[in-house]
Amino acid sequence: MTVCLNFRILLYMTDKNSHDRKALEAHKRLAGKISVSLKDTLDSKEKLSLYYTPGVAAVSRLVANAPEETRNYTWTNNSVAVVSDGSAVLGLGNIGPEGALPVMEGKAMLFKHFANIDAIPIVLNVHSADEIIAAVKAIAPSFGGINLEDIAAPICFEVEERLKKDLAIPVFHDDQHGTAIVVLAGLINAMKVTSRKLEDAKIVISGAGAAGTAIVKLLYKYANPRMFVVDSRGVISANRTDLNPEKKLLLEYTNKSDIDGSLSDIVEGADIFIGVSKGGLLTQSMVKSMDEDPIIFAMANPEPEIMPDEATKAGVRVMATGRSDFPNQINNAVCFPGIFRGALDNTVRTITDEHKLKAAEVIAGLVENPTPDEIIPAVTDERTVAAIAAVIR
Amino acid sequence: MTVCLNFRILLYMTDKNSHDRKALEAHKRLAGKISVSLKDTLDSKEKLSLYYTPGVAAVSRLVANAPEETRNYTWTNNSVAVVSDGSAVLGLGNIGPEGALPVMEGKAMLFKHFANIDAIPIVLNVHSADEIIAAVKAIAPSFGGINLEDIAAPICFEVEERLKKDLAIPVFHDDQHGTAIVVLAGLINAMKVTSRKLEDAKIVISGAGAAGTAIVKLLYKYANPRMFVVDSRGVISANRTDLNPEKKLLLEYTNKSDIDGSLSDIVEGADIFIGVSKGGLLTQSMVKSMDEDPIIFAMANPEPEIMPDEATKAGVRVMATGRSDFPNQINNAVCFPGIFRGALDNTVRTITDEHKLKAAEVIAGLVENPTPDEIIPAVTDERTVAAIAAVIR
Repeated sequence: MTVCLNFRILLYMTDKNSHDRKALEAHKRLAGKISVSLKDTLDSKEKLSLYYTPGVAAVSRLVANAPEETRNYTWTNNSVAVVSDGSAVLGLGNIGPEGALPVMEGKAMLFKHFANIDAIPIVLNVHSADEIIAAVKAIAPSFGGINLEDIAAPICFEVEERLKKDLAIPVFHDDQHGTAIVVLAGLINAMKVTSRKLEDAKIVISGAGAAGTAIVKLLYKYANPRMFVVDSRGVISANRTDLNPEKKLLLEYTNKSDIDGSLSDIVEGADIFIGVSKGGLLTQSMVKSMDEDPIIFAMANPEPEIMPDEATKAGVRVMATGRSDFPNQINNAVCFPGIFRGALDNTVRTITDEHKLKAAEVIAGLVENPTPDEIIPAVTDERTVAAIAAVIR
Repeated sequence: MTVCLNFRILLYMTDKNSHDRKALEAHKRLAGKISVSLKDTLDSKEKLSLYYTPGVAAVSRLVANAPEETRNYTWTNNSVAVVSDGSAVLGLGNIGPEGALPVMEGKAMLFKHFANIDAIPIVLNVHSADEIIAAVKAIAPSFGGINLEDIAAPICFEVEERLKKDLAIPVFHDDQHGTAIVVLAGLINAMKVTSRKLEDAKIVISGAGAAGTAIVKLLYKYANPRMFVVDSRGVISANRTDLNPEKKLLLEYTNKSDIDGSLSDIVEGADIFIGVSKGGLLTQSMVKSMDEDPIIFAMANPEPEIMPDEATKAGVRVMATGRSDFPNQINNAVCFPGIFRGALDNTVRTITDEHKLKAAEVIAGLVENPTPDEIIPAVTDERTVAAIAAVIR
């Protein structure tokens, strides 16, 4: 068994090393994954004088006098800034703006590929809420939307809230709401597969960061189920004296009976486990202590809270992860392209909770006959963007 | 005569209106002049996992540990932010960020068309030097260079100076230095055509804003000629009590003999008139009072300080304007694409005065046999970018 396990780890690491090497080589070869294209050529004096001086002056005068016309004459009808300060990048943590840039360029690729949106990676050299907000507000007239990305909790909450209040363009923190929407979509179908009702479920959320918090709030809006959030110190309850304001706020939605305890205490009898925390936290014996036919969303990356084969051994049928190499991948990419496509096309200024709930329902509805192995459409499903965009209005 | 003149104005306005209408239509049709392209497709799970998670994590880790490698793995080796607060846009003045956006998109088109550089228009909703500097410093890790554009004097001077000091990427205020470089290039050839030496010339510069100031400084570096700057209140001299610090600084380079007077007083006997001020300021009688075979660069846009036909009538042979419909167009587009191409390719962190002088000489050198009608290469000359880039190292 030990030999076997070591061999598996070795294989995984070799695979991972070779994949890492491939990724490094691919990035170095491209030297940048995106570029700027012109929507018309500039190959005549006539075009130079239409698109630049003197012709452009007429356009500038027009939009200066009627700023609401800007989107009809510039790329703000289709451009989104993908903004990160690099403080919570993937599973890598606080690696700074340079470290974040390859991820934000990747995100820009997804925006273009899935939704034909012109997304620009903007990595920030500032990290306080005030400074991030000031920078984004300063550059906001350049874009039609702001996608916040990989900004650490709790700063991300204040950043998003204040920007939403102050800006007239949609602001969306994908790590929060993109994740929450896709989780809710998956749960809607998981309920069908296991013949449950969400409002009757006991749900344990492992992880009280950006994603965990947004999941709690959206599930509360959708069905107000019985929820418990666990952080590294155990269940979040009113008895704890170490909670920051954001975690205290979670008590409005969860743990009404002030239960204390560890993850293994609280998962007992739970219908649903949602992991947005750390690889390996959920053991087979914990899973076995859950309600019959439990639902496991183990979304820590790259290593889930429990590996699918272990969960299967513990009797789990409906299992989702964040990974593309297992069934039921919970990936924001299912969601954010459609959210922004809709917001841009329908000039939606604020993505509301109602938008998020509708998006989740629409995503869930794309799976006509949910099964344990298919509760969520694939990232590559070509119907998704238009379906979501249609309800963001 | 009156009828005739009115008819000319009418024709000009009709032409202008029809060109304006064409420009508005073209902009509305495109709805944004630039877009984002992907340098590779994203049409397989394999590519998704190389360019986004999990593969991109290896790249993020690498550049986070060695930020100087960022340019080898992201688009910062070829990306430039075109930054404006919209406070001094074309001849339109302070029209704000929305009004500036069409111009900055146009500039991005020029960057791409002439130098294959990926330029992103960033228009700012802040206008003090401190706020502009803070915003640009915050977003700087996203780009390989900063092109400042259409920021009003005197704020533009402080903004550029402090950013150059604080950032490790090239910062270039095109309205200052782009203009100065192309003016010097034109003057070098104008000297040949009129058999003069720049160091012996008397030069009057009309306009003490961003362009005028930079022209003075570069000409001083190149040949220390006898220079006089005129603003709306007359010649800038030590006797004036109304000068801001930036205008006071011009006294280090100009008007050593403390001469006072108006434009018409000071152009008497001058070899060269350089206008970066307002249409119609220079009359035929002023031109006639200048030295024999004078050189006129009348670059106010769209109406030059004196129209070429009037200057010709007053005996001028060598005349340049900012317009594409007359010979000898002094246009920054001759310069900035090559400056940034060189800076990006040769990882030049600071554009120095030596770079600017070399660029001017290289541009002048592209005209093999300067004539009154050809002292500067055309904007469309395909040799220019590579020639300039070669000396920015």
